[in-house]
Amino acid sequence: MNNPALNTTKHTKGEATRAAILDAAVRLAAVEGFGALTIGALAERAGMSKSGLFAHFGSKDELQVATLDEAVRRYNEVAFLPALKAPRGLRRLRALANNWLQWVEASTLHSCPMVSAMHEFDDRPGVMREAIAEHMLRLNDEIMRGVQMTIESGEFEPDTDCEQFAFELFGIVATSYRSRNLFQDKRALVLADKALDRLINSCLAVA
Amino acid sequence: MNNPALNTTKHTKGEATRAAILDAAVRLAAVEGFGALTIGALAERAGMSKSGLFAHFGSKDELQVATLDEAVRRYNEVAFLPALKAPRGLRRLRALANNWLQWVEASTLHSCPMVSAMHEFDDRPGVMREAIAEHMLRLNDEIMRGVQMTIESGEFEPDTDCEQFAFELFGIVATSYRSRNLFQDKRALVLADKALDRLINSCLAVA
Repeated sequence: MNNPALNTTKHTKGEATRAAILDAAVRLAAVEGFGALTIGALAERAGMSKSGLFAHFGSKDELQVATLDEAVRRYNEVAFLPALKAPRGLRRLRALANNWLQWVEASTLHSCPMVSAMHEFDDRPGVMREAIAEHMLRLNDEIMRGVQMTIESGEFEPDTDCEQFAFELFGIVATSYRSRNLFQDKRALVLADKALDRLINSCLAVA
Repeated sequence: MNNPALNTTKHTKGEATRAAILDAAVRLAAVEGFGALTIGALAERAGMSKSGLFAHFGSKDELQVATLDEAVRRYNEVAFLPALKAPRGLRRLRALANNWLQWVEASTLHSCPMVSAMHEFDDRPGVMREAIAEHMLRLNDEIMRGVQMTIESGEFEPDTDCEQFAFELFGIVATSYRSRNLFQDKRALVLADKALDRLINSCLAVA
């Protein structure tokens, strides 16, 4: 019990198990929705006992929120944070938009768990509704900040409406998902790029 | 058994029961999704026996597809068909877009059952995936036809891309839903109108 090496190993193993459970959970939620994320269904899929899973997540709510947080963590890792490496202004704003459009492929998921969560919980008050609203509002704020920086860099007209831009950019992401997932249209990203160009061009500063 | 009046009454009563079941089903699907639409859950909500419900819908699939078809019927009744009363060209195209943006309120639903169905089934092959894809593709075709008529009326530039317009219009509808339902933003329709104006203005024929 007092052997630090043993404790470290135990801790690492627990973390690895938790990560494996969350990986299965994110994939399940992306395809079948968060409603399918019960302790029982996930235990079966992860090849664990229900009691083993309960040791990591005490309730369905806790499991759902942890799964959403894991999806957001991946989004930040493969889409949001890499975009911040672009210089402030239009290049960063384009990177934020392009990485958002491509994040599902980059994360090797077939669908976006945040989109699933949004449609499942927007009508149902509770911890999941609060969690997804918080994540989407934070992303919306980041897009507005990106637009503000593009105004400050002189690339966008000073009267560009940051909120309107963020509102429309989400629309381009959403319609791109529909074309790809429902219509199985391979040109979804081409159409999305054209829409993004139209949106950006309408804000460009007249030199 | 050979009394036609009796048969008519029986037929009408059956239709009324079916309509009442579908009304409960559309509301349930809009809020909790089509996954919640089991014969058992709906029987409880409609105050009927499971066997009574089975007499109308033989399976969960049949119930789900009938519910989706009923939602589409309402969409056509309150949104699509009224827009066709507007003269061909830009006025009709605007009516198609505005009625789409307002259809949930007009139908007294809180959410759109087609949006629910799309996100639940786009990843899951089967009759529901086929049904929602068919409905959404038909609506997409109608929007493209509306754009084509607006080119023919001389209001849009001849090189306007009908597919691109329909792609972007769906984005405006989708982001308007997110602002209204998830962000509970009362200005969702104002932002949507501005986005629609920007889209339309970019296609207008230079007189």
